[in-house]
Amino acid sequence: MTLDQLAAVAEEAADAAGAAIRPHFRSQLAAELKADMSPVTLADRAAEAAIRAVLGARTPAIPILGEEEGGTLREEGDLWVVDPIDGTRAFITGRPLFGTLIALVRHGVPVIGVIDQPSLGERWVGIAGQATRFASPIGGAGTARSRACGHLAEAELASTSPAVYAGADRQGLQRLSGQVRRTSWGGDCYIYGLLALGLIDIVTDATMQPWDWAALVPVVEGAGGRMTDWRGEALRFGTDGRVLAVGDARLLAPSIAELTDR
Amino acid sequence: MTLDQLAAVAEEAADAAGAAIRPHFRSQLAAELKADMSPVTLADRAAEAAIRAVLGARTPAIPILGEEEGGTLREEGDLWVVDPIDGTRAFITGRPLFGTLIALVRHGVPVIGVIDQPSLGERWVGIAGQATRFASPIGGAGTARSRACGHLAEAELASTSPAVYAGADRQGLQRLSGQVRRTSWGGDCYIYGLLALGLIDIVTDATMQPWDWAALVPVVEGAGGRMTDWRGEALRFGTDGRVLAVGDARLLAPSIAELTDR
Repeated sequence: MTLDQLAAVAEEAADAAGAAIRPHFRSQLAAELKADMSPVTLADRAAEAAIRAVLGARTPAIPILGEEEGGTLREEGDLWVVDPIDGTRAFITGRPLFGTLIALVRHGVPVIGVIDQPSLGERWVGIAGQATRFASPIGGAGTARSRACGHLAEAELASTSPAVYAGADRQGLQRLSGQVRRTSWGGDCYIYGLLALGLIDIVTDATMQPWDWAALVPVVEGAGGRMTDWRGEALRFGTDGRVLAVGDARLLAPSIAELTDR
Repeated sequence: MTLDQLAAVAEEAADAAGAAIRPHFRSQLAAELKADMSPVTLADRAAEAAIRAVLGARTPAIPILGEEEGGTLREEGDLWVVDPIDGTRAFITGRPLFGTLIALVRHGVPVIGVIDQPSLGERWVGIAGQATRFASPIGGAGTARSRACGHLAEAELASTSPAVYAGADRQGLQRLSGQVRRTSWGGDCYIYGLLALGLIDIVTDATMQPWDWAALVPVVEGAGGRMTDWRGEALRFGTDGRVLAVGDARLLAPSIAELTDR
C-alpha cells in the first residue's frame, strides 16, 4: 500500500473513533450513566477498539500500539501508534479541543499523522513529503501552512499546562515565556494543529509519550514547521518526553537556548 | 419590556455579533488582509457595532457600555454591558473558545446574561429567576445545571491563565490548586459556561472588568451556581477584578479561604 492508501485507512479509523467518542462527550450531563466507568474511560476504550477494528481489517500485517490496550514500541518496519483521546482533561471538562491521534511510524520515523477533533469535525492529515491538509467547518480549511516568524519577540507560544514543567523545565519554560510576544494555555494536540495553520509559532511540552507526539510530526512538518526534542534532535521512541514544535525553523535554536539555558 | 423580551433582544444582538465575527476568525490564513488592523481588532469593532445597532434600535432608552467604544458605568436604572470578544488570545490563536458577552445590568445587578460562541453555534442564556438555557450542536444542549460538589478534594478547577495572578494572588491560586482534584487552563468566558453545565466546579480570575463578568453572573446563578468576589460579596461595578464562580455553594467558603489565606 502507498502512503496515500495508508493515510486513507488512518482516516477511516479516525471516522470510526469519532463515532465512538461523540455519544460520550459531556455525557455526565445525562441523568444516569450506563456504567460505573467515567465518560472519558468509556470513550477512550470504545474509540481505541473502533480504531483497532479498522486498522486490523485493512492492514492486518501492521502491528498497533495504543495508549489504552498497549502494544510494543518497535523501530523495525511499520507500526500504527494510536491515542484515542489526547487531552483527557479537556474532554472531562467539556472543552472540545481534545483529539484522536493516529500515526504510522516507519522504521521509527512518523510518516503519517492524523489529528481528528470529532466534536467539531476538524481534521489535520500529514503525510511525509506532502503538504498537510486541514478540514474544518469553522474556519481555515485547506492546505495547512505554518507562518514565518524569525524572532522570539514576535512569537505566539502555547502549551497545555504549566503543571507538566517541573524544576529546571519550569525555569526553562519561564525563560522562554519571558522572551516571546504572548503565552497562552490549554489545547493538547489541538495547539500543534493551530501551529500547522500559522496561528501559533511555538508549542512545547515536557512529558509526552510516543502516542502523544507521533501523529503531530507529519502534520507540523508537512505544514512547513519543525518538531524535535529539546536538544533539537528528531523525535524517536526513546525521547525523554520533552517536545518542541516551531512553525519557522529559525525559532528552533533560540527556543532551545531558553528552554535549556544553553 | 419584560426580562424575557429584553433577553430576546440580547440574543438578536448576539446573532448580529456572530455574523460580524465569523468572517474574521482565523482570517490571518487568507493570503491578503483587507486592512492594516489585526483580525481580532476588526472582529471586535464590527461585532460591537453590530450589537450597538440592534440594542440601539430595540431599546433606545437603555444606555450601552461596551469594551471597544466605551460608555459610562452607572448603577442607576438599566445598562447594557457588552464585550464583543471575550478571550482575544483564544481568538488570535484560533481556539474557538472565545465568546461574545451581552449583559443587562439593573440597578447594578446583572439580570440577563448571554454567552455566545459564534464559531461553534453554542449559546448560554441566563435570566434572573429562571433556569439557564444552553444551545449547542456538539453536546449538552438543554437546561444548564451546575453539579453537586461538597469538597475541594473532589473539585475540578479551571482558570484562563496563570499569568493573571500576581504576588499574593498567585500564592492563593497555588494554595487552591493544591487542594482540588484537578486544575486545567484556558477558556475565558467559556469555562464559566462549562461550570454552568456541571463539567467544572470552580472557576476563578483575578483581573476582570465589569464587561468580563456581568453576563456570566445570570448564567452561573441560573444554573444553580454562585458568583462573587474573593470576599464572597456579590459582584458590583466597583469590584477589584477578583472573581470566583462555584457550581455548588458549599465550595464558596473553602475556595475563598485558600485564595485569600483567611
